[in-house]
Amino acid sequence: MIKIAVLGATGYAGIELVRILSSHPEADIRVLGSQSFDGQPISKVYKNFEHVLDLNCEKLDLDKVSECDVAFTALPHGASKDVIPSLIESGLKVIDLSGDFRYDDVKVYEKWYGQEHSAPELLKESVYGLPELYRDKIKGARLIGNPGCYTTCSILGAYPVLKSGLGNSENIIVDAKSGVTGAGRGLSLAYHFCECTENTKAYKVATHRHTSEIEQELSKAAGKEVMISFTPHLIPQKRGILSTIYVNLDKKCTTEELVEIYKEFYKDEYFVRVKEAGELPETKHVAGSNFVDIGMVVDPRLDRAVIVSALDNIYKGAAGQAVQNMNLMFGLDEKTGIANAGFYL
Amino acid sequence: MIKIAVLGATGYAGIELVRILSSHPEADIRVLGSQSFDGQPISKVYKNFEHVLDLNCEKLDLDKVSECDVAFTALPHGASKDVIPSLIESGLKVIDLSGDFRYDDVKVYEKWYGQEHSAPELLKESVYGLPELYRDKIKGARLIGNPGCYTTCSILGAYPVLKSGLGNSENIIVDAKSGVTGAGRGLSLAYHFCECTENTKAYKVATHRHTSEIEQELSKAAGKEVMISFTPHLIPQKRGILSTIYVNLDKKCTTEELVEIYKEFYKDEYFVRVKEAGELPETKHVAGSNFVDIGMVVDPRLDRAVIVSALDNIYKGAAGQAVQNMNLMFGLDEKTGIANAGFYL
Amino acid sequence: MIKIAVLGATGYAGIELVRILSSHPEADIRVLGSQSFDGQPISKVYKNFEHVLDLNCEKLDLDKVSECDVAFTALPHGASKDVIPSLIESGLKVIDLSGDFRYDDVKVYEKWYGQEHSAPELLKESVYGLPELYRDKIKGARLIGNPGCYTTCSILGAYPVLKSGLGNSENIIVDAKSGVTGAGRGLSLAYHFCECTENTKAYKVATHRHTSEIEQELSKAAGKEVMISFTPHLIPQKRGILSTIYVNLDKKCTTEELVEIYKEFYKDEYFVRVKEAGELPETKHVAGSNFVDIGMVVDPRLDRAVIVSALDNIYKGAAGQAVQNMNLMFGLDEKTGIANAGFYL
Amino acid sequence: MIKIAVLGATGYAGIELVRILSSHPEADIRVLGSQSFDGQPISKVYKNFEHVLDLNCEKLDLDKVSECDVAFTALPHGASKDVIPSLIESGLKVIDLSGDFRYDDVKVYEKWYGQEHSAPELLKESVYGLPELYRDKIKGARLIGNPGCYTTCSILGAYPVLKSGLGNSENIIVDAKSGVTGAGRGLSLAYHFCECTENTKAYKVATHRHTSEIEQELSKAAGKEVMISFTPHLIPQKRGILSTIYVNLDKKCTTEELVEIYKEFYKDEYFVRVKEAGELPETKHVAGSNFVDIGMVVDPRLDRAVIVSALDNIYKGAAGQAVQNMNLMFGLDEKTGIANAGFYL
Repeated sequence: MIKIAVLGATGYAGIELVRILSSHPEADIRVLGSQSFDGQPISKVYKNFEHVLDLNCEKLDLDKVSECDVAFTALPHGASKDVIPSLIESGLKVIDLSGDFRYDDVKVYEKWYGQEHSAPELLKESVYGLPELYRDKIKGARLIGNPGCYTTCSILGAYPVLKSGLGNSENIIVDAKSGVTGAGRGLSLAYHFCECTENTKAYKVATHRHTSEIEQELSKAAGKEVMISFTPHLIPQKRGILSTIYVNLDKKCTTEELVEIYKEFYKDEYFVRVKEAGELPETKHVAGSNFVDIGMVVDPRLDRAVIVSALDNIYKGAAGQAVQNMNLMFGLDEKTGIANAGFYL
Repeated sequence: MIKIAVLGATGYAGIELVRILSSHPEADIRVLGSQSFDGQPISKVYKNFEHVLDLNCEKLDLDKVSECDVAFTALPHGASKDVIPSLIESGLKVIDLSGDFRYDDVKVYEKWYGQEHSAPELLKESVYGLPELYRDKIKGARLIGNPGCYTTCSILGAYPVLKSGLGNSENIIVDAKSGVTGAGRGLSLAYHFCECTENTKAYKVATHRHTSEIEQELSKAAGKEVMISFTPHLIPQKRGILSTIYVNLDKKCTTEELVEIYKEFYKDEYFVRVKEAGELPETKHVAGSNFVDIGMVVDPRLDRAVIVSALDNIYKGAAGQAVQNMNLMFGLDEKTGIANAGFYL
Repeated sequence: MIKIAVLGATGYAGIELVRILSSHPEADIRVLGSQSFDGQPISKVYKNFEHVLDLNCEKLDLDKVSECDVAFTALPHGASKDVIPSLIESGLKVIDLSGDFRYDDVKVYEKWYGQEHSAPELLKESVYGLPELYRDKIKGARLIGNPGCYTTCSILGAYPVLKSGLGNSENIIVDAKSGVTGAGRGLSLAYHFCECTENTKAYKVATHRHTSEIEQELSKAAGKEVMISFTPHLIPQKRGILSTIYVNLDKKCTTEELVEIYKEFYKDEYFVRVKEAGELPETKHVAGSNFVDIGMVVDPRLDRAVIVSALDNIYKGAAGQAVQNMNLMFGLDEKTGIANAGFYL
Repeated sequence: MIKIAVLGATGYAGIELVRILSSHPEADIRVLGSQSFDGQPISKVYKNFEHVLDLNCEKLDLDKVSECDVAFTALPHGASKDVIPSLIESGLKVIDLSGDFRYDDVKVYEKWYGQEHSAPELLKESVYGLPELYRDKIKGARLIGNPGCYTTCSILGAYPVLKSGLGNSENIIVDAKSGVTGAGRGLSLAYHFCECTENTKAYKVATHRHTSEIEQELSKAAGKEVMISFTPHLIPQKRGILSTIYVNLDKKCTTEELVEIYKEFYKDEYFVRVKEAGELPETKHVAGSNFVDIGMVVDPRLDRAVIVSALDNIYKGAAGQAVQNMNLMFGLDEKTGIANAGFYL
């Protein structure tokens, strides 16, 4: 059994981690870290856990955490980077859900996050936790920067067309729609039911931090620097991201041919489902699961691919992917505890 | 492994069964019966199953079904009762999700369903599949009438106060609110998004069939004939039933004392969670799980108990309970495959 | 034109008032009172008003307000009662949306609100602003206690059966379901989208303040003291209350006969729509309008009436009713500016 | 008073027309055409109209319709074009909500709609009913092709940047999100509540008919042929379209400068609200109103404008715009009956 600490257990990503781990056959949850709910049973904070998990939340106690094998840190950006070095030093593996350890280049982090990085040495050794691209590195890592929700969806959606050389690296547009769990659990009028339901809006246009993560990975795919338009939208549902990605093609290609490129690229991936030509993803197909669904249409009038990718932002976009990383780091079958179909209903 | 046929696999209760069974460690799904989708892969009908379950829907083939150990029949009322006798004869255990095998008295069935019963002999041996009340009988049964969603919620909510002798058997009101999955998957303008969202209504007031099931069981609890007002409502959410139950008390009693009666009654039940005084159930605490949450307030001005019970109508109210029954019938731990916490988000 | 001040203009009831008044042919909005948004254009706080209403919010300036003909006070309970005496003294008519001036008996107010009443003299002269019951008094009033949303729905639903002598005054149950606008605009995790959507719950069981308002009026209908069970529920929609009311009948009666009693009672009322036998209200029929829809079923097994009433909680349950009162107080046709059909969609 | 026939009155666009017209001071609704509900009171089909509008639906009677001054035809594509020639011949003005009379070039219609046009002569004289672009022509027209919902939103959003010469005509992307009323009222499992809520999807990628309407108008703005990627999405809300439009800029420009171009272009338009730099539209700001809100951000890294436009698809995108056209055709103030703020809540 893997002894586990979840730090930041009562946020939405944290509690989804706890939910997944509470059914995971190799997981032994030892610590539920929460500043705000210190001393309270998790089953009083999230009452769905009554009878299922009998554990109290507690504020950070590094000694206690250090007895675990792995820590998931689902803390606000900046907070996690103070804690992580000492966890690493204690010999834990760490899977960090913040943005702090996702970058190849500290300067990119500092530009987009507007603050100095406090552990640049660790950043160097950290591995970007996208198993479909970095599986082997993840297996040997002791620190994972677990990718963001928008980024996982967008990178996996755009990677193959760029890697294949078919997609042009200019004029790439990623228009993404996210459910409200993405906003987290902090108090804000903007996320009240009466302000969110029956409402759709764009936000942080041209300035969202995830832009830099997507560009970092797509640049590798293209073999040259890629800059994209990334536009996040808030839509009135809890779970789900749908990214609609526009990529100009450098030569004629049919939808079927492009689908074939994607099927080949992801042929060994359980968690990526490439749709047949004529089919497109919907968020309800992935909600509550670790799957990413990707469909596409080539517009022959414009020689442009429209690629649609969908995932559950707090599952494959956060907690589920973190567990997938844990499975890899501890030599388990990658699908352990997360192979299930989504809710649909 | 238990070899399983799900007949009526593509309705909402059926597909929830398939979802639960696809993660159940002892379940081997052999047959997915569906008239409408004969020959189609289940993963094309419900695309959340792609990569998870690779099985085609097929129309009823009794020979093939008879090679299974158990059949779940999630067919329309009346349809299942033509199929079930031959399944029983073939030696299968049958768990029927229709209303056909839920009654002690065939006359009650015929009155409320407005049709003759086609298998009255089988009705006599069938067992009402509410494990919290009939666990021992279920273990030995070969035919289960799996209770309805409204009824499970209402019976478990009202049983202890009546059984204890504290509740008066007159003037019992059950005011129930159900999510839209309860209406099933049949085409109807009334269940279109634009007609359902932002809308609440009562329906079938004083005439809903589940009234008779609730009365049958509560009469046993009270030791005398109980007649209730049962009012179903449709509320704009997918999953969840909340029943608000009003019972006059024959003597003074505090909320705390009533809670104690419920805690004692359900003290060995994993799937029933009695809330402390001051807490009340919410449907989000049970959605996606097999739990029933029950809370209560005694109104000292009126000597009346207001009992609130909540469950997920397609899980504990249909598919999850059916699996719970299967576990019991096959000697497994009752919680196998259904012990998990709900989604919450 | 009537010169109008809306105090508390940026809460949900306040802004609905502003919306209705901005299309009212006799309304001249002069003051938009708001502590929190002092100095800001209303069209920046509620951007639906851009191009429609060009007025700044301002903090309370009694001199300026005193130049108006009427003030609507949509302030928190307690706050309005400090302001109202001076407005009355200045010669304004006042329509108060708080609970402060809705009671015949100051003791009832003080018991249910848990505080002393600061203007008991004014309470004596204030009129309960339910036009369907108190139209004549309202016409001559200078201070209106505008009824609450739950109360308007419940009182109008239950009044005729009690007034007719047919309904028994014992064992009355009011089970009410409300949209989330009823909770107002204050910050609270409980009203966040992800906590409200796909969720239904009961709250303040046996203790909600509106109980006392409903009892006050139904006691007058019955000619004797009435005590009820009132259970409010929160349902995942913005607008709408549906009250399901259970009343035992003292003699046999058909649904058609009961409908006839209601049709007779409300025969001159534009804003009350009594449904034919076989039809029941739905909240989407009334959302965005000043209508109350009432339908009913008599259960012949139990000699019990199940009466369902529906309204829009921030329209007929707050702002629309306040405008209806203003129309009466200023000698206008009661329907002026509020005669429209609801949105439906 | 203008004597009015609404043909196709019981679809979602039709009933929104009826709702708007029932409060319009110059409208006299004479005929409610509906094949499916012939003989039924409109207030039984849409119960929000009880007490408000006392008129029966009726199947098409050209003699009766010909006594009106204007007919709104909200019929399925193809159906309206059989009726309209005879209405025109009878001297009525016709405002057609189908796609039949929106095209300059009959070949474009026939290509995108896959059928021959039955009244090409009338198509030549019909006027595209977008008042912000064609106000003068509309005033004198007897046949209006009322623009679609996606198109109104997208054209008004993209027009000024192209007209100004700043926007490049290549690589234009319109990523649009629509509420479910846009799908109309026909029976379809895809639009059931349980299939739509908590779900977002793209559909008809690269093939949606509205693409051709948008290209027709934007080509005029640009002064050269424009071909766009247009991707419609279905989002879980009733009303509202949000279009996110990507246009490369031919020279450096700040957000503020672009906003200024838009403000100048729309300076006389009541129904277009250009947002200040730093603000963006949301669908809740326009729902229930005839407004189009447009905001924008220039991405200086890419010299690309991201323009966001929002409207209510059945109001400004259908019924409200049709009334705006009627007002113009009959010499009324364009805002008559449709000047109101949206619901917000």
